[in-house]
Amino acid sequence: MAVRVDLNLSLDGIAMPANQTAENPMGEDWGRLVAAYVGTKTMRERVLRDTTGEGTTGVDDRYAAAYFDGVGAEIMGAAMFGLHSFPDDPDWRGWWGEEPPFGYPVLVLTHQQRRTIDFANGTRFEFLSVSPQEALDQALRLAGGADVRIGGGVGTVRDFLTAGLVDRLHVAVSPIVLGQGTSLWDDLRSFDLGYAVTSELSEAGVNHVTFAR
Amino acid sequence: MAVRVDLNLSLDGIAMPANQTAENPMGEDWGRLVAAYVGTKTMRERVLRDTTGEGTTGVDDRYAAAYFDGVGAEIMGAAMFGLHSFPDDPDWRGWWGEEPPFGYPVLVLTHQQRRTIDFANGTRFEFLSVSPQEALDQALRLAGGADVRIGGGVGTVRDFLTAGLVDRLHVAVSPIVLGQGTSLWDDLRSFDLGYAVTSELSEAGVNHVTFAR
Repeated sequence: MAVRVDLNLSLDGIAMPANQTAENPMGEDWGRLVAAYVGTKTMRERVLRDTTGEGTTGVDDRYAAAYFDGVGAEIMGAAMFGLHSFPDDPDWRGWWGEEPPFGYPVLVLTHQQRRTIDFANGTRFEFLSVSPQEALDQALRLAGGADVRIGGGVGTVRDFLTAGLVDRLHVAVSPIVLGQGTSLWDDLRSFDLGYAVTSELSEAGVNHVTFAR
Repeated sequence: MAVRVDLNLSLDGIAMPANQTAENPMGEDWGRLVAAYVGTKTMRERVLRDTTGEGTTGVDDRYAAAYFDGVGAEIMGAAMFGLHSFPDDPDWRGWWGEEPPFGYPVLVLTHQQRRTIDFANGTRFEFLSVSPQEALDQALRLAGGADVRIGGGVGTVRDFLTAGLVDRLHVAVSPIVLGQGTSLWDDLRSFDLGYAVTSELSEAGVNHVTFAR
């Protein structure tokens, strides 16, 4: 019943590149940031619905598989769901099509009032305007003993980190420099001191750093 | 005859902590940033003059030894030499006492006119007001075929990186979060694309990332 976060970071700590546009909602450097993760067999199968069996099977894939393991509910911000990109579309159902790669309840934090959306695979998006602690209490009930993920975006993750609500933070640090964008770490000085920290390098040179308490 | 940089970084890319004071000229988090490096057998012997033979002998120590290997001249900024901390002391001879751990010529970039300082161990501090390229030309001549190090501080290193003058950048990334200070990477977006990048984890969890061309 841990509260978990998994994020991809650049060497300069950026979790969300700059220069986001309607055509490129994650910013033009997003592809570089997540390249090793998206290239894994697990992510290709579970997110991209790639049935060719291709993709890497090393350390990065082990973390990708763990990403999906043992999570029973998730919390995400309005921007990650897409409400900032499509604020006026009452029929917006998220970025993930009709098989969102969750399969569990997802609480979307927003001041908008929106109706709950249910998908055949068990994914349910519920929209609510509450504090991080209140959202977490509700997610823990929904998770039924499994873990709760704080999915993103980086602003939402930072809210939960600064509130001290995260038990395990895993960052996959790619050896790339983005130079601009939203840093995960601003104002989180000495965050690491409350956690046991371990590191593991992948074949692609991604440093998987895990902060656990 | 490579132009080299070696720096310690935090996970958020900070090379120089904030909150520098006269008593704590490197900022109060400096100790955390360089802990693994300072703990190596090589650094204890060569910088701290510790003759007990103590210190770590693993991956961090291998990089510490390489730090001193094959360098024939160095360039550093005025702040790193101490001219910003002691601007009005014409007798200031640097932070390192009477056995500075260089043993070769060091060019200090400053607009101040100061006399050259020679030490018995071959270290020579020369002070000059020139461009990065001019300083480098002079350092390469002084190095006589050996490498030139851009020693720091971070502003000086950034000047040489942005001018495209660095052949090999090695950063030792500790799994700590400083949250404030001077980042190495600001405005260096896609710096990595011009280099081959390798990574190696130390026993202490320091990720040694090397950009080489």
